Amino acid sequence: MSLGGLLSSPPAIVSAGVDVFSDALRAQGAEVHDVDWRPPGFGDPADLSAIALDPRRAAANRTAVERLLAAGSELVDVRPARDVIGLADRTLLHSGPPLSWEMASGPMRGALIGACLFEGWASTVEEAEAILAAGEVALDPCHHHRTVGPMAGVTSPSMWLWCLSDPVNGGQAFCNLNEGLGKVLRMGAFNQEVQTRLRWMRDVLGPVLADAVRSRSDDPIDVKSILAQMLQMGDEGHNRNRAGSLMALRELSPAVVAVDAPSSDIAAVLKFIGGNEHFFLNLGMPTAKLALDAARNIPGSTMLTVMSRNGTEFGIQTAGTGDRWFTGPAQTPVGLFLGNFGPDDANPDIGDSAIMETYGVGGFSMAAAPAIVRFVGGSVPDALATTERMHQLTLTENPAMAIPIMGFRGAPTGIDVLKVARTGWLPQINTGMAGRVAGTGQVGAGLVQPPQECFEKALQALAEESRTA
Amino acid sequence: MSLGGLLSSPPAIVSAGVDVFSDALRAQGAEVHDVDWRPPGFGDPADLSAIALDPRRAAANRTAVERLLAAGSELVDVRPARDVIGLADRTLLHSGPPLSWEMASGPMRGALIGACLFEGWASTVEEAEAILAAGEVALDPCHHHRTVGPMAGVTSPSMWLWCLSDPVNGGQAFCNLNEGLGKVLRMGAFNQEVQTRLRWMRDVLGPVLADAVRSRSDDPIDVKSILAQMLQMGDEGHNRNRAGSLMALRELSPAVVAVDAPSSDIAAVLKFIGGNEHFFLNLGMPTAKLALDAARNIPGSTMLTVMSRNGTEFGIQTAGTGDRWFTGPAQTPVGLFLGNFGPDDANPDIGDSAIMETYGVGGFSMAAAPAIVRFVGGSVPDALATTERMHQLTLTENPAMAIPIMGFRGAPTGIDVLKVARTGWLPQINTGMAGRVAGTGQVGAGLVQPPQECFEKALQALAEESRTA
Repeated sequence: MSLGGLLSSPPAIVSAGVDVFSDALRAQGAEVHDVDWRPPGFGDPADLSAIALDPRRAAANRTAVERLLAAGSELVDVRPARDVIGLADRTLLHSGPPLSWEMASGPMRGALIGACLFEGWASTVEEAEAILAAGEVALDPCHHHRTVGPMAGVTSPSMWLWCLSDPVNGGQAFCNLNEGLGKVLRMGAFNQEVQTRLRWMRDVLGPVLADAVRSRSDDPIDVKSILAQMLQMGDEGHNRNRAGSLMALRELSPAVVAVDAPSSDIAAVLKFIGGNEHFFLNLGMPTAKLALDAARNIPGSTMLTVMSRNGTEFGIQTAGTGDRWFTGPAQTPVGLFLGNFGPDDANPDIGDSAIMETYGVGGFSMAAAPAIVRFVGGSVPDALATTERMHQLTLTENPAMAIPIMGFRGAPTGIDVLKVARTGWLPQINTGMAGRVAGTGQVGAGLVQPPQECFEKALQALAEESRTA
Repeated sequence: MSLGGLLSSPPAIVSAGVDVFSDALRAQGAEVHDVDWRPPGFGDPADLSAIALDPRRAAANRTAVERLLAAGSELVDVRPARDVIGLADRTLLHSGPPLSWEMASGPMRGALIGACLFEGWASTVEEAEAILAAGEVALDPCHHHRTVGPMAGVTSPSMWLWCLSDPVNGGQAFCNLNEGLGKVLRMGAFNQEVQTRLRWMRDVLGPVLADAVRSRSDDPIDVKSILAQMLQMGDEGHNRNRAGSLMALRELSPAVVAVDAPSSDIAAVLKFIGGNEHFFLNLGMPTAKLALDAARNIPGSTMLTVMSRNGTEFGIQTAGTGDRWFTGPAQTPVGLFLGNFGPDDANPDIGDSAIMETYGVGGFSMAAAPAIVRFVGGSVPDALATTERMHQLTLTENPAMAIPIMGFRGAPTGIDVLKVARTGWLPQINTGMAGRVAGTGQVGAGLVQPPQECFEKALQALAEESRTA
């Protein structure tokens, strides 16, 4: 069953991941404003008090929110990772918090193996496993390089990166190019099909896009504006990027056509972009990264700047605690499966793409994209209720990211660790699911939450920081 | 104020055209299922009885609905009107029911004048008015030629037409190419800007699109599928065609790039398509026309096959009464205005584009496109309520046109004259508004209904037909 088939046939809903809540909602139809039940809050009361009474908190969170909301995102270049972030030979970036080969899950190992083959550091899978196990390839999180990567997020020196710039706060952020769906490196596949595509992306797609993007240097594509329009077009920017991918194609195609390359290459580039409904994701993620990096290092702020998963651990960072990671075991999503795959085939949560929810879109803005329930599971009232509920965890609404069906209310934005602890609600993320066995590729899509443990650790650190400030 | 500005700034809502109803709704928030108030029904009880008791009715309406729902729509060619529908010299097609120059409104006159200039039948506005007033140019409705045209719908022999084919029922339908927004022929503008664009469309756009479309003859673009996807992407297919236009661009662009034409022309074609959010409308309209023409001439059926307006009169046709028109005075839409325009500047309702509502999308599917209220007026609850209410006027739901926010319920489809009379609800149409003075162009967009008189006349004819069957 293809992904297209999933959308056109009745969904086999395994679970929405919010079942107690959604049952209550179904009984009420779409009237989602008056749900009383809450999970118990968590956190040491003394810690919560220390954070709540920190005199810096209100102003710090205001600053964090202001910088986040003000951030822009322009597409300024496309360059190989080697050049633009100085990625050294025998170094690979990956999604989530820091990771060793020993602790890496199947799809992460698959992607790392595939990247070693792609870079020519190994000529067989066994050789690749050997150099990775021997520590001969350095591993480092994307987030440590102002970079984000969906799913395994494995980024190697020869891969081309979208280069985005925030004209307001002055930041930069990077992301590799989206490969499409199915058997792809980011889902842990590494076979010949994957290698052939990666080489074409290196030799044809990257150079053509680089020329096209540079030709618009006096009128760079406003990626934030595309993301805003997506929320009016049934996308939520994480697992629905249909309208965004089409808008990116519209913006790029006149410049692509003008690139000095064989017309067969030009047509192939347009077909590749047009055939990938998630093409925009790798532009949306660095857009969110720019906004959240602008809010880094604001002492006293309890706002999240990162939620990210490496397939083994889920890690978060806060504006008040700099580059420290607070981690816990990654949960396994529940949702809808492709073909004959089922829950036992799914790897735990993986990818930097939860940066979308950290920014307030994706799972936080599912009300904008009711059709997504046919892809990630749940019902339309669930989608509306999720957005409503996320407003309880967030510091503000993003007026640039207005959701029509909610009366144009802005997306719930700026996750507050303190509100998460007090309400006991955890952030709602929607996500692709990689097969747990290396080489499998995508097995489905679903809903997942961070482990509470991340937030408990962040609370302790924020409290400690408040007491010693 | 540009159209873009309209969407990003607070709307000045003049009226929703359903004010009594929407006031009641606002008091209830978004809970739209339990509204009791109904307008009084209409029609001679004896006529209603004759129609209701016609033994052919149930089967006839079932056949009409089956053909309508089964109809497909493939883009098979792009050809000049002269060739494909045999449009003769000194003949112009127009929207709506039959019309004379004497009864033509300002924008219709403007478009007819502009077409005479474009075809070289006159070299000044005065000359064009003179030959039109003298009856030296034959006028005929688009609908009499399996053709539809938005707004004035004026179609001249040298204009290129989209040629669509229904692979199920075997029909064909045609529509000219969309010019974009603002000062355009279909809105009654005819100045040099309009003429220059029409010549470019004749000399560059048409030939390039013809080559591109023909190169896909073994894999024609499935336009019905695009329309279905639009309803999942915030479009309703009449006044929001953003996602549809992007999907059309995606489907066409690889073939456009391969056309043997100067690369500057190719880039200009891609920019023209990419710059027009209503580009798809002229593909959606013949798609609806194909489905409704498939339901023509079914004795005993009370289903509408046409709703159309010429700027002076509104006309409808039914499946049970063949090609007969039932007309009444066109109403003036109420909605939102561009720039300094206001209600006094608006011409009465004009265009064949109400074929979208006749098919069940457009105003009937506004729940799929809540953002449209920033363009045509009204509130988000109004949009949901309108779709809900239209189910009371229709014979079926179109499963191919599913609306996610309504729990994927199909669009209300197949307007039943008998249900309209019994409920007293009139079909809800959303529409562009042309300036009432020839040459003005677009002044806004809004909501409008047909005059009840059309339905009263259709009822009489259907009753007469039932009695004599």
